[in-house]
Amino acid sequence: VAGAYSSSSSSLSKLNSDASKVVCRGAGLSTALIGQKNVFNVDCSKAGTNMLLVGVHGPRIPCEDVYVKHMGNRLYTVTYTVKDQGNYTVIVKWGDESVPGSPFSVVVP
Amino acid sequence: VAGAYSSSSSSLSKLNSDASKVVCRGAGLSTALIGQKNVFNVDCSKAGTNMLLVGVHGPRIPCEDVYVKHMGNRLYTVTYTVKDQGNYTVIVKWGDESVPGSPFSVVVP
Repeated sequence: VAGAYSSSSSSLSKLNSDASKVVCRGAGLSTALIGQKNVFNVDCSKAGTNMLLVGVHGPRIPCEDVYVKHMGNRLYTVTYTVKDQGNYTVIVKWGDESVPGSPFSVVVP
Repeated sequence: VAGAYSSSSSSLSKLNSDASKVVCRGAGLSTALIGQKNVFNVDCSKAGTNMLLVGVHGPRIPCEDVYVKHMGNRLYTVTYTVKDQGNYTVIVKWGDESVPGSPFSVVVP
């Protein structure tokens, strides 16, 4: 699938894609609170051209919602909300590749 | 990565995951408009247990934002906004597997 949007992305830019250069930061990668916006940032500015994919899943049911906003220059802010206590998993991929640290284990106390 | 959240998902439920049973519907899978909320639905209710991943990319820069909301029973609504004219690509994955129809080619007139 990484090559699926070749018509809109040059071969050169895809060769430049390097998921290992993606940096994720923020409290939302380790702890999340019910009824609040849980946030983390994803810096893909050094990772070439690709597509950011984010998934969040709870101990029993999917995450309530996930919002991925591009802030410009391939810097993204991810905001999500949870309904359940327990252990959540956050997956961050740059195209087909997981980024450093992913999957993240998030505790909802 | 499909097995990455084994601690929160039984082997049985993962064996039940079947991306081919995911159904995507909606205008936002073929056409999107600048300055409006573009929407499609993803029905994973027959697809077992897994994590929904959605990515949207434009002809030059990433999609402005993508919002994935779980409506219950593994039915999701995806809303996204675009800033550029041209050809966008929408990727929908159920865990590591692309769902039927993905990648979707979306025109922004």
